[in-house]
Amino acid sequence: MDKTLPAPLTEARLRQIDAYWRAANYLTVGQIYLLDNPLLREPLRPEHVKPRLLGHWGTSPALNLVYAHLNRCITEKGLDMVYMAGPGHGGPAMLANTWLEGTYSEHHPSVSRDEAGMARLFRQFSFPGGVPSHAAPEVPGSIHEGGELGYALMHAYGAAFDNPDLTIACVIGDGEAETGPLAASWLSNVFLNPARDGAVLPILNLNGYKIANPTVLDRIPREDLLSMMHGFGYEPHLVEGDDPATIHRTLAATLDTVFDRISAIQHEARSGGTVERPRWPMIVLRTPKGWTGPRELDGKPVEGTWRSHQVPLGAVRDDPSQLAALEDWLRSYHPEELFDATGAPAAELRVQAPRGEKRMSASPHANGGLLLRDLVLPDFRRYGVAVDRPGGTDAEATRVLGEWVRDVIAANPDRFRLFGPDEVASNRLGAAFEVTDRAWGARIEPGDDHLGPDGRVMEVLSEHLCQGWLEGYLLTGRHGLFTSYEAFIHLVDSMFNQHAKWLKTTNGIPWRRPIASLNYLLSSHVWRQDHNGFSHQDPGFIDHVVNKKAEVVRVYLPPDANTLLSTMDHCLRSRQYVNVVVAGKQPAPNWLSMDEAVRHCERGLGIWEWASTDRGREPDVVLACAGDVPTLETVAAADLLRRHLPHLKVRVVNVVDLMRLQPDTEHPHGLPDRQYDALFTTDKPVIFAFHGYPWLIHRLTYRRAGHEHLHVRGYKEEGTTTTPFDMVMLNDLDRFTLVIDVIDRVPGLGQNAAGLRQEMSDARRACREHTRAFGVDHPAVADWRPGRPLEL
Amino acid sequence: MDKTLPAPLTEARLRQIDAYWRAANYLTVGQIYLLDNPLLREPLRPEHVKPRLLGHWGTSPALNLVYAHLNRCITEKGLDMVYMAGPGHGGPAMLANTWLEGTYSEHHPSVSRDEAGMARLFRQFSFPGGVPSHAAPEVPGSIHEGGELGYALMHAYGAAFDNPDLTIACVIGDGEAETGPLAASWLSNVFLNPARDGAVLPILNLNGYKIANPTVLDRIPREDLLSMMHGFGYEPHLVEGDDPATIHRTLAATLDTVFDRISAIQHEARSGGTVERPRWPMIVLRTPKGWTGPRELDGKPVEGTWRSHQVPLGAVRDDPSQLAALEDWLRSYHPEELFDATGAPAAELRVQAPRGEKRMSASPHANGGLLLRDLVLPDFRRYGVAVDRPGGTDAEATRVLGEWVRDVIAANPDRFRLFGPDEVASNRLGAAFEVTDRAWGARIEPGDDHLGPDGRVMEVLSEHLCQGWLEGYLLTGRHGLFTSYEAFIHLVDSMFNQHAKWLKTTNGIPWRRPIASLNYLLSSHVWRQDHNGFSHQDPGFIDHVVNKKAEVVRVYLPPDANTLLSTMDHCLRSRQYVNVVVAGKQPAPNWLSMDEAVRHCERGLGIWEWASTDRGREPDVVLACAGDVPTLETVAAADLLRRHLPHLKVRVVNVVDLMRLQPDTEHPHGLPDRQYDALFTTDKPVIFAFHGYPWLIHRLTYRRAGHEHLHVRGYKEEGTTTTPFDMVMLNDLDRFTLVIDVIDRVPGLGQNAAGLRQEMSDARRACREHTRAFGVDHPAVADWRPGRPLEL
Repeated sequence: MDKTLPAPLTEARLRQIDAYWRAANYLTVGQIYLLDNPLLREPLRPEHVKPRLLGHWGTSPALNLVYAHLNRCITEKGLDMVYMAGPGHGGPAMLANTWLEGTYSEHHPSVSRDEAGMARLFRQFSFPGGVPSHAAPEVPGSIHEGGELGYALMHAYGAAFDNPDLTIACVIGDGEAETGPLAASWLSNVFLNPARDGAVLPILNLNGYKIANPTVLDRIPREDLLSMMHGFGYEPHLVEGDDPATIHRTLAATLDTVFDRISAIQHEARSGGTVERPRWPMIVLRTPKGWTGPRELDGKPVEGTWRSHQVPLGAVRDDPSQLAALEDWLRSYHPEELFDATGAPAAELRVQAPRGEKRMSASPHANGGLLLRDLVLPDFRRYGVAVDRPGGTDAEATRVLGEWVRDVIAANPDRFRLFGPDEVASNRLGAAFEVTDRAWGARIEPGDDHLGPDGRVMEVLSEHLCQGWLEGYLLTGRHGLFTSYEAFIHLVDSMFNQHAKWLKTTNGIPWRRPIASLNYLLSSHVWRQDHNGFSHQDPGFIDHVVNKKAEVVRVYLPPDANTLLSTMDHCLRSRQYVNVVVAGKQPAPNWLSMDEAVRHCERGLGIWEWASTDRGREPDVVLACAGDVPTLETVAAADLLRRHLPHLKVRVVNVVDLMRLQPDTEHPHGLPDRQYDALFTTDKPVIFAFHGYPWLIHRLTYRRAGHEHLHVRGYKEEGTTTTPFDMVMLNDLDRFTLVIDVIDRVPGLGQNAAGLRQEMSDARRACREHTRAFGVDHPAVADWRPGRPLEL
Repeated sequence: MDKTLPAPLTEARLRQIDAYWRAANYLTVGQIYLLDNPLLREPLRPEHVKPRLLGHWGTSPALNLVYAHLNRCITEKGLDMVYMAGPGHGGPAMLANTWLEGTYSEHHPSVSRDEAGMARLFRQFSFPGGVPSHAAPEVPGSIHEGGELGYALMHAYGAAFDNPDLTIACVIGDGEAETGPLAASWLSNVFLNPARDGAVLPILNLNGYKIANPTVLDRIPREDLLSMMHGFGYEPHLVEGDDPATIHRTLAATLDTVFDRISAIQHEARSGGTVERPRWPMIVLRTPKGWTGPRELDGKPVEGTWRSHQVPLGAVRDDPSQLAALEDWLRSYHPEELFDATGAPAAELRVQAPRGEKRMSASPHANGGLLLRDLVLPDFRRYGVAVDRPGGTDAEATRVLGEWVRDVIAANPDRFRLFGPDEVASNRLGAAFEVTDRAWGARIEPGDDHLGPDGRVMEVLSEHLCQGWLEGYLLTGRHGLFTSYEAFIHLVDSMFNQHAKWLKTTNGIPWRRPIASLNYLLSSHVWRQDHNGFSHQDPGFIDHVVNKKAEVVRVYLPPDANTLLSTMDHCLRSRQYVNVVVAGKQPAPNWLSMDEAVRHCERGLGIWEWASTDRGREPDVVLACAGDVPTLETVAAADLLRRHLPHLKVRVVNVVDLMRLQPDTEHPHGLPDRQYDALFTTDKPVIFAFHGYPWLIHRLTYRRAGHEHLHVRGYKEEGTTTTPFDMVMLNDLDRFTLVIDVIDRVPGLGQNAAGLRQEMSDARRACREHTRAFGVDHPAVADWRPGRPLEL
């Protein structure tokens, strides 16, 4: 504590804040323990206590403390603030505050601000059919669940971008601070523009312990911790102690100091002053874990240790001494002073809460759908490539998309950002830099390429930060696109999980308004890692995604530039989904004109008649494909079959929307069985060339008729630094193998087919030998396009 | 640069080091560009250049610089050192050094240390059929691929644990340093014991750029960066510049200083001095990206910018001026001074390399299987629980396992560690603390629970660190077990990917010796998140794992304590696998005696005759199960069927080894079709109660006969904070639903069955109402065990 701080508040005001804090603490403990007798109007008896005691006390008192103090600052300074509760286990604390502020009762009238409502508030917590124990979507004002730790600070920065009048107070637990994602988040301040963006106030709450251990940041020398925060570019303010009255004074004074500092930074930046990265304030708040809870149990200390992490007194119903300790604990807050005769918060408390949308639990920013405005989307059709005949021209699909994305950025300067781990240019979306920079608040040197504080492209070498910033940005009512190398998007598998769970849950909460979808563009995909090899080859994110609720996940594999444009336009208009789009960045054939592409994407899959030879009749074999590289191999295989087995009726089906393969009982996009059967037949061999792991197609189609005739080729985890055609050969996805697959599965093809089979094997060998000899693919395969014969 | 540093070396010695560096740089450039004319004995012509130019130059010169200087230190000081190349893209640099040291030629005699060998070294790099572009497993001395960035420093610490005589020089790229996992790694020094463990020397190489952007750590004020490193507990040494002669002098002097410091720290700790966390030295090395490469191209700077990231001159074969620039570049290293008439490294260079296993490329630590010694494993049978009849007693499976793990720790004080993200006690492996502490080098306070510098339990709230440390520990020839909450193991999905790829690749490298398997124990699983709810419910890691090569992945779901013991004993004896074991920590029935458990685990799956009513005959229905909770529900369903439909022939099959379900053509553990059919029948309904997402079972069995009769129940992403039985009901995995599934699928059951169906529906409703009313499960289901009737 800096004893030179001014005492900003009268003792009376401090007592008021303390009362508010005690009320929130009381309501927190009540939720964890009480079934009945919420105001302790009678002595506490075992039957007043829940039979199962669930929840987390340890982090709650500090969350409540910060909440009460921020309320004062909001009221006095007129701030717009969102409270980010990193210690997500503090659900009961957050709920306590929403009830005190009245927001909870507004959303749930039965949980009224009176004794009966308080009883319901207590009973429903962590109770079957009630509310979960975290700062979950059910908690008004929360945009951060915190069940999986590490994302509080990146969510806070994401919420602050393009919200100049918003301040995010972000409480970070010292447990959470040990995680990688959180450790990387501190330097997010490099990407925040004080003129255009809001402010983030990190409050690192050192309570010293996690589940069963002390925390690293509490046990290294305090001087090192402050040095670290200084190194991250912050001005750290230490508030430390275990005496409430003292902490109230120092925290209040410190908050006044830091909000003044934030205001000064913003004022300077916004009045044409420096745009150099300012040294933002942050607070290190060192208070005991489970503060104001039971001092000890069975001779062991509880308050101030990891023993207060969950439920400090675990046997209250059976142990009279624990019951008495609980009653003492609850009464230590003096509920009789805090709630009036009806059970409502006392008038002294009610006046302390901010009004209306100034209440952190009622901030529209924390229910971002309320603020969501549609994107202004330029007509994607204008960006298409001309296609006079299938495969007549080539394009780099993501480069074509980049021009549209550029204009989306330009048309939406306040509500759309592009996120990528240093891969925006590599993924060929570089057109964006014709209209904007990469956001950058650190030193800029001559020759730097499109860096600037106003940049709308967010590039940092951390998929975690890209994902977390974007989540925070979306949850506060904006839009975005995350482009990544396909293989490394697995870095955020678990973050995707949590976001998908958030979406699923909010679909069931009437007062939560829909937000924009989280859009992934995965490029530099498994089939084209010429520079990088095996470590960069993994198409499994799709497999991961489809485990989540069908209502919130969509997967698209547009085969060319025009279908990519149509798909991405659809994704940017959608709400409450996670859209995964996989597309190549290398020159590849354009198959469909824009009109054809739109129709194809609307259907999600369909027969490519120009590549087929069944002419509307029942085919002998279906060649299905999904993904740009498999589509090329499939078209080439169909061409080989047409030339060599002209009487064979081949149908080519291309799949853009992968979820169409599932039955309509499993996914909203699922194709009804009759339509599926009409496309794929029920009894003919289907050779499916797939972008990813082949079994995913089986998992999506195992209920379909004729599944036993389905043969899937895809990535089977074979790869290295090699040529594109060598990669498909390594995984038996090449055109020659597809032809062999047809020959092996269609009966009665006769002698011609046996010869063709041999020819295909020879072609594979010739291609491999050429590649080994010259280090490049045989031009006959590398340069092949429809209409050209394949000559090896 | 600190100009007060002593100049430790003569100018002649510095010139020697410079020559070594130039040789490595020459060999690096040669690999990227040259097909032929390796020594430039004739003027460079287009046909000497590779048709596809692949690889990464930018990071290579600094990797080579550090390598050359470390060689001097190794030789002069007799150090045992491993080189961790965080910038994994520097594959050609690492290969250059292994060739200079002779190691590469020892493993690959055709790539000899002469002109012909040099030509092969050049040609094979990033060439089809050759070697990949990273510091991949193919590179002697590498235990870190670095394709996916972020793990260098955690691998280094993992390698240092229990290796007191080893120093790991860990070069960290400033791009990599932006990732979360790397950011969290710095504080690994809290867990390193200078007395018992080796040393890690982090060398943060600021070259200023990543793929297309400057790096954050280079562009924040240098003072902030040093403050950050100080905050992490290091003593940072800055070496900065772009003049080779100056850098040689300062780097040499700095290395002498830091190795002296390391030596002093270790000496003090090992001579009974302080065990407090020392301030280890680290180096910030600021050198230009692509140093010594082309200065510029087409008027734009290349050296010292992101443009040197991959191949600085990209059109050498077609552009004579670029060809000339490449020749100038290569000749600038003066190859004629560096290689003798045969093409071998000049004598002056050869004497500089350390000898034998002192060569970093030949360190046995970097081929850990060479050093691997079997664990001393106490007989797990002695730790089993007594089971007089199935379900006659309860146990917490992981707690039972904990006693065995305790004794594994005690019996292997130098080669086994237990890793967990603050969840070892929560996952009920707390018995470990009877024999050891949690490793902890920071401040210890009275009342702390088993913390100490010698602890063999590694707890930090970062799954990334647990995984990375363990990988480093395994790759250097030791053993370990990682225990985590099931849901959050997804945090390391991508790290698992990279490790599985490493294992798959090393299986094909003769000189790489097998290492111990990476063992996961996932507990606190999806079905028992009573405190935590939806965010903690995700059983999908198994789905992720089975995408990797069958030869390296194994998945086990032991249904009780004795099977868990048997399974884990098997896993700790295995090599070159990733073993995933999912087991509960809550009290649950013991089904099998130890002898039965061993036999059941050996088979991997089998009929539980005591729970079945088919008595060796063809059953009417098969109830299959995998996982502890589904097994309980299945046994209970079978019991209900026995009581209510006594004539129905029910077979109960339990699956421990999930890979047994796949055909033997797909996985080495796969069951031959005949055996599968004998267990599951080919035409009877199979109701499969599965621990995870139900479609995984379909994906494993879609090729099996009778797959159309398979009906799987599992987790379908429904959950919240609720009771255990409510959880299974939410996902239709409960005993009552399983009975209904049987009734709906077995024909001809008659009127009795219709009544039973209604009864089951009523039971579900009664259970739900009881839970909603009282907050706990109905005792009739919660307390049910075989032999007791189910009375609601």
